[in-house]
Amino acid sequence: MEADKVMCLPKLSRVAVCGGTHGNEMSGIYLVKELLKAKAKGVEEEEEETVPALLVLSNPRAMQQCRRYIDTDLNRCFTHAALTGPMLDPELYELVRSRELNATLGPKGSPEAVDLICDLHNTTANMGLCLISHSDCDWICLHIFRYLQRQMSDVPIRYIHLDVSNKEAYSLDSVGKHGFAMEIGPQPHGVVRSNVYAVMKAGVQHMLDWVTSFNSGRAFESGFVDVFTMVKCIDYPRDSKTHNITATIHPELQDRDFCLLCPEDPLFQTFSGETLSYKGTEPLYPFFINECAYYEKGIALCLARQRRLRIPAIRVQTEQEQQANKQRSASEEEE
Amino acid sequence: MEADKVMCLPKLSRVAVCGGTHGNEMSGIYLVKELLKAKAKGVEEEEEETVPALLVLSNPRAMQQCRRYIDTDLNRCFTHAALTGPMLDPELYELVRSRELNATLGPKGSPEAVDLICDLHNTTANMGLCLISHSDCDWICLHIFRYLQRQMSDVPIRYIHLDVSNKEAYSLDSVGKHGFAMEIGPQPHGVVRSNVYAVMKAGVQHMLDWVTSFNSGRAFESGFVDVFTMVKCIDYPRDSKTHNITATIHPELQDRDFCLLCPEDPLFQTFSGETLSYKGTEPLYPFFINECAYYEKGIALCLARQRRLRIPAIRVQTEQEQQANKQRSASEEEE
Repeated sequence: MEADKVMCLPKLSRVAVCGGTHGNEMSGIYLVKELLKAKAKGVEEEEEETVPALLVLSNPRAMQQCRRYIDTDLNRCFTHAALTGPMLDPELYELVRSRELNATLGPKGSPEAVDLICDLHNTTANMGLCLISHSDCDWICLHIFRYLQRQMSDVPIRYIHLDVSNKEAYSLDSVGKHGFAMEIGPQPHGVVRSNVYAVMKAGVQHMLDWVTSFNSGRAFESGFVDVFTMVKCIDYPRDSKTHNITATIHPELQDRDFCLLCPEDPLFQTFSGETLSYKGTEPLYPFFINECAYYEKGIALCLARQRRLRIPAIRVQTEQEQQANKQRSASEEEE
Repeated sequence: MEADKVMCLPKLSRVAVCGGTHGNEMSGIYLVKELLKAKAKGVEEEEEETVPALLVLSNPRAMQQCRRYIDTDLNRCFTHAALTGPMLDPELYELVRSRELNATLGPKGSPEAVDLICDLHNTTANMGLCLISHSDCDWICLHIFRYLQRQMSDVPIRYIHLDVSNKEAYSLDSVGKHGFAMEIGPQPHGVVRSNVYAVMKAGVQHMLDWVTSFNSGRAFESGFVDVFTMVKCIDYPRDSKTHNITATIHPELQDRDFCLLCPEDPLFQTFSGETLSYKGTEPLYPFFINECAYYEKGIALCLARQRRLRIPAIRVQTEQEQQANKQRSASEEEE
């Protein structure tokens, strides 16, 4: 790729915004419900499409009970293997539901999949707004990220890269051709805070604006962005017999997501008051510090390395380019 | 009662500290577990009693599932009627468990009840440390409250008075001769934050120190304390058909527990962005603002009136006084 060449990418015709993938993460649930209302009103009043997206409430049963999930974490069900292998247990609600969602929004990895999925999440960690994706070379996601940073300069916005292949990626957003989770915190699960809701509403609106602008033919310049690539997770100290946690996040670390954690920095404080320090050899950036839902997953915090990436200039393909590309893929398939 | 007369009250021989009455309020759960460990170690090493209290984990099944309750809210099961009437449904775990706890710590209203119950709770609301009691003339609770305020001057500490009789009082702490909930926030349910845990640990330690000091014969001077008497609760605005909430706490009110709310102050913000103001006629003090567990109870916040109370000087009864009092009650019963 030459430095200033503009990369031409297919139009994003079908965009999905999903909420309630975790049934107790309230901002996304109320935002999708609000967008559904606006859309219904727009249809009624025969306006042009007010919300140019497919709106999905992913886990209605869990939402009804205000729980993360009923039987198993829905947002871990979307690996290629889980979606295409034999159904492990049709009694598990989320296994069934993940296939329904894959049929609606995918199939994952196929030409029929929606072009972009934005899946809305909340965390109890003090993470601001994060886009989380399994790709560090999805120029659509990275351009949206840079656009949000510029449009919402009063909110800390980061990009978290989970270094796994699309096939291994387990999250709902991996079903789309492009996709990311929009994760916002801190907000207790089961609660909706107006400030967090407002940030999510603005984030989704700017994302949809960007898509409209991209589809209309505007070119977006090349540049640099910082991404946080996950390195590892650390569990709480636990009692070897009961498996109960014996310490929690140290007060000096709590709420300091994305502040560099250096070797020997305070990490945990035991319930009897002792400080345990970080024994890693490399300074890393912590995130998901003290996330409620991760106690059961054995995660007290995650650690990331920060990297600067160059993103190319992009614009949407013209109809001729798109046509030519289609013919090329078709003839490649025949070969 | 004369102004400077010292009131003599029975010794507090049996004190209970309870955690896990709500199975996802983590500070109390981990604190009681830690105190149990310290106690076991003290017994092992034949020290004098390290924790002079009965330690209770109230709802072990809910704790195991990290949920508030299994079938029904345990902390609403302790009215006189619920404890003594026919068992409504022995299939409901908390109904059975409330009777077990009443047998251990009560029976409520009887001479056999423990002298003092301190029941540990957390809230997602920004309430600091609150003692909550159904009495505004329980001098033991009010003296403990004043002592905590003096010992922990860096923490906002308030006393909330729920204006109901002991018979109507529904909470576990009402089973003791004296009792209060120690409520600390903000902390998301299912999470333990080191700062909130530390405040609770200090609060319980100071409470136990006060009891030891009181029992040893020290007199506590009279004085004034401010209490917040609950006036009413307000629900979220809801859709009349779906009963879903249509607004959340206004950003200018969120986290401002115990800051005076005046008529026409912003109260809610709808999901479409409209501000709804407080329509009451009297300025009142809000608390339990946006508490997670109260969405299902139809409570967005509670409102209180502040009052200044005079508490008398108190000391423990001497053994002779206690003996004389016992004889007096016995002869009264005979009459």
